[in-house]
Formats: sequence, C-alpha cells, structure tokens
Amino acid sequence: MEEMHYQPNELARALSMRRSNTIVAIVPHVSHPFFASLLSSLEDAAAQRGYRLLLCNSREQPEKVWEYMATSVSNNAAGIILCSNNICPSCLRQLDLPIVNLERGEKEDGDGTVSIHCDNYQGGRLAAAHLIERGCRNLLHFGGITGKRMPADRRGEGFSDVCREAGVLCTILTADQKTYELMSYRAFIEEALRRRPETDGIFASSDLIAAQTLQVCAALGYSVPERMKIVGFDGTLVASITTPTITTVIQPVQRMAQLCVEHIEKLQHGELVPDNVTMPVRLLQGEST
Amino acid sequence: MEEMHYQPNELARALSMRRSNTIVAIVPHVSHPFFASLLSSLEDAAAQRGYRLLLCNSREQPEKVWEYMATSVSNNAAGIILCSNNICPSCLRQLDLPIVNLERGEKEDGDGTVSIHCDNYQGGRLAAAHLIERGCRNLLHFGGITGKRMPADRRGEGFSDVCREAGVLCTILTADQKTYELMSYRAFIEEALRRRPETDGIFASSDLIAAQTLQVCAALGYSVPERMKIVGFDGTLVASITTPTITTVIQPVQRMAQLCVEHIEKLQHGELVPDNVTMPVRLLQGEST
Repeated sequence: MEEMHYQPNELARALSMRRSNTIVAIVPHVSHPFFASLLSSLEDAAAQRGYRLLLCNSREQPEKVWEYMATSVSNNAAGIILCSNNICPSCLRQLDLPIVNLERGEKEDGDGTVSIHCDNYQGGRLAAAHLIERGCRNLLHFGGITGKRMPADRRGEGFSDVCREAGVLCTILTADQKTYELMSYRAFIEEALRRRPETDGIFASSDLIAAQTLQVCAALGYSVPERMKIVGFDGTLVASITTPTITTVIQPVQRMAQLCVEHIEKLQHGELVPDNVTMPVRLLQGEST
Repeated sequence: MEEMHYQPNELARALSMRRSNTIVAIVPHVSHPFFASLLSSLEDAAAQRGYRLLLCNSREQPEKVWEYMATSVSNNAAGIILCSNNICPSCLRQLDLPIVNLERGEKEDGDGTVSIHCDNYQGGRLAAAHLIERGCRNLLHFGGITGKRMPADRRGEGFSDVCREAGVLCTILTADQKTYELMSYRAFIEEALRRRPETDGIFASSDLIAAQTLQVCAALGYSVPERMKIVGFDGTLVASITTPTITTVIQPVQRMAQLCVEHIEKLQHGELVPDNVTMPVRLLQGEST
C-alpha cells in the first residue's frame, strides 16, 4: 500500500467493509414543512452517530425512488429511510439492506422492513376531544389522499371514534392526489365549507392544511376561534407563524429521527429491532381553538 | 477482475476517477423555509445531472462545517455548495475542490470560490418603491444579524437608497444572533413597533420575519394592509399560507440551484465559470400591501 502511495479514505473503507456510513433519506417533498423538519432532525441524528445523509426528493415518482434504491444497494449504503409511498412492498424484500419506513403506508407484514410512526390514532382522538370540549358540535376532518391507504388515515379513525362516542356529527373528506402534490388545498377547503355551512370545528391532517383553512375562513368571514375552531397536525414551524397560531398535534419528530438512525445502526450490526414502533403525540393549544 | 468476482460499483468508480458524483450541500437550517425550498431545488437539479446530494445541517457550528468540508475532500466529492457563514475565507483556498457560495457572506476576492446570489440590492429597491407607491411614509426594515456582514444586507441598502431618493423616512433594525438562530422574531418586532408607533410600512428580510410581523400587528390591533403594509423576501411557501398572504420579493431559487450544480460540473471539468453571478428578483403582490 505504501508503494502505491495509497491514501486511505472513506470510499476505500466502504469498499472493504460491508456497508458505507451513508444513509439515504427518501422523502416526497423536501420543502413540505413536516419533511423539512424531519430532514433537519435526521441529519442531526445521523451526524451524531457518524453517519452522513444522502437526500432524495422523490416527488412520489416511482422511477426516482427506485433509482435511489438501486444506487443505495450498489453503493453499500448503511440503510434507507423511506417516507415515500408508491413502492411495491414485496419488492423491498429483495433488497438486502436495512430499510426503515417512516409514516409510510402499504407496509406488508414480513416484507423485511421496520416501521416508525407517531400515534396517529391517538392524535385524532386528542383533536376530537379538544374540539368537543371547546363546544364544537359539527365537525369536519380534512384527511389524506382519496383512494390511497396511509398511516395518517388513522388520524381520521381516532377522530371519528371519539365523535361517535360523544354523539357529535363528523364528516371526513379526502383530497385528490394533485391537491396533495401541489400542497394547495384552498379550493378543496372552500368547497367543503360552502357545502357544510353548519361546520363549527375542523381537524386538518397537517398544519399546512390548517393554515390554508385559516385563509378560507378569513375569505368567508368566519372568525377563528369564535365562529370556527381549527386543529392541525405535525407541530411544524407553520403552526407557530400563522395568525392566529394553530392548535396542533405534535409529532415527536426529533425522537422519531433518532430512532430511524438507531434502527439502521442496529440492523447493520445484525441486532433485532421491533417491526413497528409507535411514538406518543401531544396536543399543543394555540389561538385557533 | 473476473477472477476476484469484482463487482463494479459507484464507489469503485469514484476511487479510480478524480471525483465522485456526490455534491455536499451545507446549509445553516434545513427547516428554514428558504433553505428547505433551496434543498428541494438543489436535489432536483443534482439528480437531473447525475449527481447525488449529501446534506449538512450546519446550525452555524464551525466544527460541523469543517468536518463536512474535510469529509468532502477525503471522499473526492464533486463539490460543495456552501450557504453557511462562519467559515474563514482564506481557509477555503486550501481545499482543492469546487466550492459554490450561495447567499454566503464574507467571500474574499481570489479565495478560489464562486458565488451565486439573487439581486438583493434590487429586491430592496422594489420593496421600498412598492411601499411608497402604496402610500407609506414611515418605513422600517427588519434586516439581517447585528454586527455580521451578509449578502442580504444589500436588501437594506437598496431599500434605504429608494427611501432617501423619495424623501421618505426609513429605519433599519437588525436582530441579534440568538433571535436569528431560533427563527423567533416576535419580541424583537414588538419592541420595534412599540418604539415607533408612527410606522406604516415594513420590509422584512424574509417571509418568516414578515409572517411574525403579521402576528405582532394582530396583537397590537394594527389591521394589515389598512394600518400597516408589509413586504417579505424569498418567495417561500410561507408567504402564500399566511392570512393575509404576504407581498414578497421572489428569489429565483430553482434557477439558482441549477446554476450551482452547473457551476460545480464545469469546475470539475476545468472549465471557467464567473466568479460572481447575480440573478434577478421580482415582486409578487399579496394581500399584505
């Protein structure tokens, strides 16, 4: 090695070892406040444990996700943190690589991956209980994407279960794929509120949707929180910079990010980790309720 | 090679070539809406040209930035996109690596790096001209960080130049480092407005500060845009989800991101690129003016 003026570096080490220290994070929208916050925490957690984070902004394009998956395999990535849907679960089994799903749907039992979610069901329950306690009797939930199963759907289930238990009316509406991709919900929200003028409380499945609900309420002349009460989800920066600020269900993003990296490290060393981890959420009251 | 069952992969190719296809992006806050939007565009631009993006969330910690710089060198990274300050410019000269500064201050002539900025000065001019045209006569600018030179300071210069030309009063205030790091400006803004009750127009150096200015105005009972007019900067998602929406100076983030990657590719191949590139901005009127 000396004769060849060989300079050891990380690439060479990665070649000689089974895995490199690169974790690939695949998210649908880097600029979505939840994923931006998640990536920030993931990078912190990765750096603390000696890993580096490679970023894939999938925009839910299956080709792009698969390209990154293939690159991860050929480069001996330490593991993949997968927040994107549109991946056939049985295909994941073929990849000989630690994969952690974060808030990703369609996981199949025995597909060889592990999943980390926040307690979406409990979050929905907290939101409903809070709105009912604040006096709402005609509730609306803006949920996930029409026709697509996602862990976030459990938010609506918890929400409607509490409404049913309390004898309060509750409607769940989902947006189409395009609305979700563009992150632009105003037209969808406005139509919903025009059709249901009796609505007095809304649970939005993200702070981003909640912020746009505030905009529609202003346009319709509904004062918040007097005429309409609103609860968001995620606990992102968005909830704290709107006027009024948004009551939100906080996901423990920092802890979830640490768990992702810890799980990949353990899987790399052949240790057992739980198939499914659910992390607790909490409601933070803002000015919107 | 066949005898050794040698499997060619990207790591091996990177070892045998001068550079890998990894670009390292060093940003101060991944979860800041501007940097989240920038990273999204950077990943798109990188993927389109066959590069991968490694993410460093520096939090303005010089040790962390240097660690990533060192890793970039030892791993033959294709180049570094540097949005972080706190790096001694003369040290950059020692790194034999393409470095593109994006909205980064303290670049020294001849430090061997190239810089890409939006036209911050023109953005400040547009903001002042718009507020004056809308009838404001006592203007305030919430600028960068006290005691720290940044390209964004040029926004305040353009702003005050137009005010002087028009004979309109104008004050520039900067926040302390801690306020900037926490992205929490409400106390700073409230004190400014209590001390200057005659203020009728505000130019904030980010949409994030503008959103928090809306909150303070609501708390003080100032209606926007009637009593107070507000212009932000960046053109992020934030400006479009507040109530009212924020008039903002849009940075051409997508084009700037493409230029970053193009410049690194050209520098990698020994081509000449301009030392400094300034990209045009434009004002998008929202409901806040």
